[in-house]
Amino acid sequence: MTHYRLAMLGFGNVGKSLARLLLAKEQEIASERGLTFSVTGIYTSRHGCALDPAGIDLRKALEAASISELSKLPPASDGMDFVRRVPADVLFENSPVNYDSGQPAVDHIRTALSLGMHAVTANKGPVVHAHRILTDLARAQGKKFYFESAVMDGCPIFSLFRETLPAARLLRFRGVLNSTTNMILSRMEAGDSFETAVAYCQEIGIAETDPSGDIDGWDAAVKVTALANVLMDAELKPQQVIREGIRRLGPGEVLEAKSQNKRWKLVCSAERSGRARSHTPVIARVSPELVGPESPLYRAEGTTSIVQFETDVLGQLTILEENPGPHTTAYGCLADFLNAVSL
Amino acid sequence: MTHYRLAMLGFGNVGKSLARLLLAKEQEIASERGLTFSVTGIYTSRHGCALDPAGIDLRKALEAASISELSKLPPASDGMDFVRRVPADVLFENSPVNYDSGQPAVDHIRTALSLGMHAVTANKGPVVHAHRILTDLARAQGKKFYFESAVMDGCPIFSLFRETLPAARLLRFRGVLNSTTNMILSRMEAGDSFETAVAYCQEIGIAETDPSGDIDGWDAAVKVTALANVLMDAELKPQQVIREGIRRLGPGEVLEAKSQNKRWKLVCSAERSGRARSHTPVIARVSPELVGPESPLYRAEGTTSIVQFETDVLGQLTILEENPGPHTTAYGCLADFLNAVSL
Repeated sequence: MTHYRLAMLGFGNVGKSLARLLLAKEQEIASERGLTFSVTGIYTSRHGCALDPAGIDLRKALEAASISELSKLPPASDGMDFVRRVPADVLFENSPVNYDSGQPAVDHIRTALSLGMHAVTANKGPVVHAHRILTDLARAQGKKFYFESAVMDGCPIFSLFRETLPAARLLRFRGVLNSTTNMILSRMEAGDSFETAVAYCQEIGIAETDPSGDIDGWDAAVKVTALANVLMDAELKPQQVIREGIRRLGPGEVLEAKSQNKRWKLVCSAERSGRARSHTPVIARVSPELVGPESPLYRAEGTTSIVQFETDVLGQLTILEENPGPHTTAYGCLADFLNAVSL
Repeated sequence: MTHYRLAMLGFGNVGKSLARLLLAKEQEIASERGLTFSVTGIYTSRHGCALDPAGIDLRKALEAASISELSKLPPASDGMDFVRRVPADVLFENSPVNYDSGQPAVDHIRTALSLGMHAVTANKGPVVHAHRILTDLARAQGKKFYFESAVMDGCPIFSLFRETLPAARLLRFRGVLNSTTNMILSRMEAGDSFETAVAYCQEIGIAETDPSGDIDGWDAAVKVTALANVLMDAELKPQQVIREGIRRLGPGEVLEAKSQNKRWKLVCSAERSGRARSHTPVIARVSPELVGPESPLYRAEGTTSIVQFETDVLGQLTILEENPGPHTTAYGCLADFLNAVSL
């Protein structure tokens, strides 16, 4: 049995789902993989911090009004202090996403790797802003920086290319990666106004109070950037993605498309501008497109995500994820942990 | 640089595609993975055999009327003799599939593993008939028995679960896995009679002279068995799959479904009969089903394969493969080789 000490920075929906999943899978992982774990630190920005080298009771942490009740050591003063002081082998970095700089997650992960921890995150910020630096640092440290849940929740995308498609070259991809805009468009097809559709998404918890990050295509642009940088060795910033959101689509356009048996989708895509093998720039785009029933994108309803990959070695490979949620994001983090520590 | 000696048993469409792919990717694999290879043996049942410890020129092998011209050693008398005598680290076993017993491929692979080679195959026979024995033998030898291309060509399915979905439990799956019947049904929707549709499939090379293995659902049943045995720890024989082919579907049924915006698909499925976690038997089935446009299976045209996986940790995950062919099967073999020798 090998034992791993886990640190959780962030204990919101994803962090709590991860805690539940760790509890549910603990015995199975021990018996099938010869691996045990304890959570030695939990940090939240508003509900306290717990540090316990002997291991925190996750059941209690899930029920506690303040995490600090469970601490055996003085609580950390901030996220960086937590990363420096937590006695851990793996950091789960699940602080809120910062689209502009990726901070403070980038610093948290850099520090964790420097201290000899593996780093796992569902946060797109550090992937988009510092993927190469953090991956190089991880390699130099003999550790892993994994981020499966940054795009399409826990559905295997990054690990698909990393683990199952050796010597494959990604030529282009195309997909629907933002569930909020996809749900808004689905609701408008059913007769909602734009405002009612947005309100519905806020009500079910998939849109922010200020939904412009989704509606203007920023979230999608960040996801395209993450995929292109990691899978195609692009060096894009989200600002370089040719980007148009869905604001120009009124109920008129949406219903007219429907009457022609087509659907508006906020399509994310990227491809090399020149010959596949040369190191030409990658052109990435987020924009509303009309798709017909012949496209697998046509069927992506509501929160479904889909991406089509074209490589130099396979025909088109399409991955479709239905019914995502915090529990699937949490699974991606667990999978990253298990992959990071397996040989 | 680590050097691997490769043996190719079978040099038909898949073997030749693999040879072309090895030539095309040789430099890239050397520079990106620090790995070189040479082919030290090629065996065919009707076009001779070549053995050369110094490496066979694959370009010449692809053009030779008889492979034997290229041999530096006396040719092998049969497949078993070839496996025993070829000086190799990896065996690509691509002999014709034998649905009844998996032989002689099972013996070829067993011998190769016993002699310390990794074994890679696109052949469903040994997977269905001897997956557990061969996998256990490989483990005992510190080698790998991989067979990605046995189902859905080179599209990652087995490696998806092996490498990217740790601690996930497959509860059920459902898909369209036989391209011949799918093409026949697609052609009948376009107005062909059953006989004309079969003749078309024979003409484009996806149906055998005796197409009953496809039409009666045997090929699909073998694929369901392979997926269920490997991914769900089932211990099924193809004969235990509840099986109905497409013979009862005439143009009348097919066109009537079309008029209702539905399609007949030969659906493959398997699920545990009881609670997911207990070791209850897996019930597997191949039968024609009417599917509507709400199902991703609806869109599977012609040679497209699709499978939907439901696990205990993710929402539904669907994999769709378009435009397969010998080159994608060959890629699965190359991926298996690279995965087998990577740490």
